[in-house]
Amino acid sequence: MSAVDFGAFVADLATQSGQAILPFFRAHHTTEDKSGGGVFDPVTEADRAGETVMRRLIGQHFPEHGLLGEEFGSENTDADYVWVLDPIDGTRAFISGIPVWGTLIGLTRKGVPVYGMMHQPFTGERYSGDGREARYEGPGGPRRLRTRQVPDLAAATLMTTSPALFQGEEAQAFQRVERAVRLSRYGCDCYAYCMLAAGHVDLVIESGLKPYDIVALIPVIEGAGGVVTSWDGGSAAGGGRIVAAASEALHEAALDLLAG
Amino acid sequence: MSAVDFGAFVADLATQSGQAILPFFRAHHTTEDKSGGGVFDPVTEADRAGETVMRRLIGQHFPEHGLLGEEFGSENTDADYVWVLDPIDGTRAFISGIPVWGTLIGLTRKGVPVYGMMHQPFTGERYSGDGREARYEGPGGPRRLRTRQVPDLAAATLMTTSPALFQGEEAQAFQRVERAVRLSRYGCDCYAYCMLAAGHVDLVIESGLKPYDIVALIPVIEGAGGVVTSWDGGSAAGGGRIVAAASEALHEAALDLLAG
Repeated sequence: MSAVDFGAFVADLATQSGQAILPFFRAHHTTEDKSGGGVFDPVTEADRAGETVMRRLIGQHFPEHGLLGEEFGSENTDADYVWVLDPIDGTRAFISGIPVWGTLIGLTRKGVPVYGMMHQPFTGERYSGDGREARYEGPGGPRRLRTRQVPDLAAATLMTTSPALFQGEEAQAFQRVERAVRLSRYGCDCYAYCMLAAGHVDLVIESGLKPYDIVALIPVIEGAGGVVTSWDGGSAAGGGRIVAAASEALHEAALDLLAG
Repeated sequence: MSAVDFGAFVADLATQSGQAILPFFRAHHTTEDKSGGGVFDPVTEADRAGETVMRRLIGQHFPEHGLLGEEFGSENTDADYVWVLDPIDGTRAFISGIPVWGTLIGLTRKGVPVYGMMHQPFTGERYSGDGREARYEGPGGPRRLRTRQVPDLAAATLMTTSPALFQGEEAQAFQRVERAVRLSRYGCDCYAYCMLAAGHVDLVIESGLKPYDIVALIPVIEGAGGVVTSWDGGSAAGGGRIVAAASEALHEAALDLLAG
């Protein structure tokens, strides 16, 4: 079975998880501090409801597949196919009422991301890809996703969730890129990578990502013609320090500045 | 004629400006640097199209009223009623494809904001108010807007468009508040004030605003039970340094920290 065959199933995961999550958006909901103090890291009932729905559907249809979820951990991750799920990427946006969070649904085969979707149920947007092509569905109608081609960093728009992601040398590395670009914007988590795939921004640079924060987005970015790796040019699938670029040239230029 | 009677007309301004603006969102569009170098300050065709439509409608229905617009300047601002328009507040979000920009439609009477609306045509959201009450229309259905009541700054969520808004002593003042709150988020322009009115966040602090960036939002914030002033506690209608809070107690606490 090729990865493309999973498209209809992923669409169903998105629809059903969206139905589980959306009633909690902008409603009263509980939060807790899962870091146990220090940085505020909210978890919502919606997160759990969304992941529970997706785990149940995957278990029913693909009991032989593995699972790695943000909320409920990993199961059978030695399987050929492993689903990598983040029911609400951007929990801070979610609890602030801002619709730039998303449900991330990724699939790896032998560790390589082969299909992914970002679903934003409030706006009704879906960004999906299989590494060869990427698609948008939502307001404005369906279309292919393609990154745009700006000539250099000086013409580029950079996004990151927050400059506070970066500490010490990382912060200096990020600032080197930020000073070189035309415009930088903060605050979008997964939505930023989708804007890159859709040709609206040119670079996304982050740090401290978990695999479930990025795996689903890799086939979307690559399917749209972009490049996404770790800061040292390795696979992005493990999370950590991530740089995504609209073109190989921009990616190289960003890696150079990050390296110092 | 009381300010409340302008509601239906403002709804029409929103619908027609939205139709003029939306085709440019996420489409190829020209940008220019109106600051003439230095800070990147994009202006879009959409901005002009939206303001042109609103100015024409206002001229047809209320030829005796004044006008202050972000794109085409002021007209007859000595009139009792003056419309204060920003067709696209959040142009950087707009050109980055992110639906947290909005069309701001404000009305002042003898200099006092009496009615306002923020319209987000991509998501179909409208936040409006007349200083006594405030309303939401959009996905999830219509409802009254009410700010929420958190006990103190330590429980509050703070928003600002970008920490880069603040320089020198202003930056230090902002950081004093930022260190006191539970969570801070960047990147939302007008959308942040609407999230405050809707009870999702508790404080918005900005600097360098123009009157057309804030006038339309004042009757929404106040109609929802919030407080919005300049950093020294004066009227917010002139723009500049603005602090909006969900309650009088939070507002006082924020003013104290901003003063040092």
